[in-house]
Amino acid sequence: MSSIAKEFGQLLRQKRKELGVSQDKLALMSDIDRSYVGRVERGEVNITLEKVYQFAKALNCDVRQLIP
Amino acid sequence: MSSIAKEFGQLLRQKRKELGVSQDKLALMSDIDRSYVGRVERGEVNITLEKVYQFAKALNCDVRQLIP
Repeated sequence: MSSIAKEFGQLLRQKRKELGVSQDKLALMSDIDRSYVGRVERGEVNITLEKVYQFAKALNCDVRQLIP
Repeated sequence: MSSIAKEFGQLLRQKRKELGVSQDKLALMSDIDRSYVGRVERGEVNITLEKVYQFAKALNCDVRQLIP
């Protein structure tokens, strides 16, 4: 998978941990499947811009903070 | 299709026109199919973050300029 997918996954994990949010909770808050959240964080998913927005909204952060 | 897809399409079109680049040329520069470029600009595609980077690279602009 691309470096962009990996970098995004790392940024998402970093932001999530900064906020003390578990993967389970992020999955719930973003209405995204828990295992998918794990795959995204490991950089295994070619994520869509829409999903980037879903995560940013769930973490209540500016989408640009998640953009590599 | 989502408003994000539409907003992204509009930003891409605006940036492309600012630079005086045709859809054909953008397709060539970004190695993306010409008809796909048209669909993206019309907001008909749930674009991936990777493709956003391909367009930003082709237009030689910061990816954040294309993020709604």
